[in-house]
Amino acid sequence: MGGDFAPEAAVKGAVMALETIGAESRIVLFGDERQIRTILESEGCPTERFDIVATTEVIEMGDHPAKAFQSKADSSITVGFGYLAKGAIDGFASAGSTGAMMVGSMYAVKPIEGVIRPTISSTVPTVSGRPALLLDVGLNVDCRPEVLAQYGLIGSIYAESVLGIENPRVAVLNIGEEEAKGNAQVKAAHELLKAEPRIRFVGNVEGSHIFSGKVADVIVCDGFVGNTVLKMAEGLYRINRALEVKHPFWSAMNYENVGGTPVLGVNAPVIIGHGCSTPLAIKNMIRSTEQVIKAGLTEKLRRAFQN
Amino acid sequence: MGGDFAPEAAVKGAVMALETIGAESRIVLFGDERQIRTILESEGCPTERFDIVATTEVIEMGDHPAKAFQSKADSSITVGFGYLAKGAIDGFASAGSTGAMMVGSMYAVKPIEGVIRPTISSTVPTVSGRPALLLDVGLNVDCRPEVLAQYGLIGSIYAESVLGIENPRVAVLNIGEEEAKGNAQVKAAHELLKAEPRIRFVGNVEGSHIFSGKVADVIVCDGFVGNTVLKMAEGLYRINRALEVKHPFWSAMNYENVGGTPVLGVNAPVIIGHGCSTPLAIKNMIRSTEQVIKAGLTEKLRRAFQN
Repeated sequence: MGGDFAPEAAVKGAVMALETIGAESRIVLFGDERQIRTILESEGCPTERFDIVATTEVIEMGDHPAKAFQSKADSSITVGFGYLAKGAIDGFASAGSTGAMMVGSMYAVKPIEGVIRPTISSTVPTVSGRPALLLDVGLNVDCRPEVLAQYGLIGSIYAESVLGIENPRVAVLNIGEEEAKGNAQVKAAHELLKAEPRIRFVGNVEGSHIFSGKVADVIVCDGFVGNTVLKMAEGLYRINRALEVKHPFWSAMNYENVGGTPVLGVNAPVIIGHGCSTPLAIKNMIRSTEQVIKAGLTEKLRRAFQN
Repeated sequence: MGGDFAPEAAVKGAVMALETIGAESRIVLFGDERQIRTILESEGCPTERFDIVATTEVIEMGDHPAKAFQSKADSSITVGFGYLAKGAIDGFASAGSTGAMMVGSMYAVKPIEGVIRPTISSTVPTVSGRPALLLDVGLNVDCRPEVLAQYGLIGSIYAESVLGIENPRVAVLNIGEEEAKGNAQVKAAHELLKAEPRIRFVGNVEGSHIFSGKVADVIVCDGFVGNTVLKMAEGLYRINRALEVKHPFWSAMNYENVGGTPVLGVNAPVIIGHGCSTPLAIKNMIRSTEQVIKAGLTEKLRRAFQN
């Protein structure tokens, strides 16, 4: 149970998720058992609908992620990753400390062999109606070209298997359409992506076309740039909400509808929720986790990086 | 006379600008004299209101900027920069070839001594009502930290003297508010900016606050990131226009209202207009040029970099 509104929002979101997940899926709740039971009761939801794993500690936002992950061994995040690493659960999602979630991803479930750097991604809405996948959105801020090229393959596999986009168009975010444009990092990544036969590389995509859907389904960029794009979109969404500018396209920008940020390239499905996740956001985060599990994403990524 | 709709849009915009510029200001038109006179006539505008410098060549968008700047010696851009370099005009603006405009800025009027890399900037609207200045927006895509630090000073002087923002807040675009965040380039720039006594450095600004106006008046970033931010804003503006999402905040995003991109750090005022400038955009570009001239920006920048 993590996030700014934990455990209420998390439990309520889990209750909402019951309606959307498959009958064969089971939600395991990690957290303060008494609190979880109290909230479930007030929601009128039988506790048998969930598995509850009682934990007693909480990793706070102010804690040092790596230290807290170790020292708070009975926190929901540390216990959850333990379950994930030994295969007792098939995927793990939390709106708690992003840093601790990353520590768990890197040190408990570990990167897939062959993946230089795992990545966090985000789906963004496009005017065309179907989402685009942006990666990296903040984990790796000084990406080597080889890392960006791997993101093209990782993103393509995710877009196809989880988002259901057939033969997704992969592009690298750049400051011009022409091949010779860009900084040294992106120019080199462009060459590597062009040489990758397993993806449909369409070249460069400019900032103006991230949300148009006209150029690319998978947009590869350095984490510094991707994080800026994502936060700028969030900021403009909030501005529009405050100004009462309404449109379904902008509603789709709402992080609540996005369902969290998958960590890609590690040995199990991990989804990181927004710190200020509402029950709706938690529900969508759980649904995303189920989708990633059912798509067999981890196995597909492992096979892709086997050579 | 440059731009996709030249010379009509340029001449019409110049006619519109007559109403907004000071009585002591004089607009000089460089281009095909017969065409200029024909358009002025059809606009019912006496030719005496302008100085006309007849040129016979045009640098096309497909031309190699540096080569064309030299070989097409009688193009409006090359002749205009000649006038600017010898002081026959006080500032120069064009919506023609951006590349040729940069060649003229760097080789005809030249960088101010002490400026490592001149920069192109853009004002962006904020919800607070006053604009923010973003730089660099695409000229330098692999900025050394020292270059970013200079942009803080250049931007601060521009915001104060041209935009009229007293004691402007200068921030570096980063992926977190905390000082330790960011890539190697931005962390080093942060230290240098903090040590610059002539600016009011407020630390990091995240993508979410570029348009809020809550954190910074001057936002320093690498040209790759700044260009992405600017193009993303343009793309979202166009999406909103297509979706008929209307609000004054979004109207302010329209490049037509921005008035071009000043080249900062060179020995004379140069403003580059959007290729697809309309008469309104040209009018605003001319007005911006007058503002930069009247603010004595070049002299202020020269003094700042004297030591």
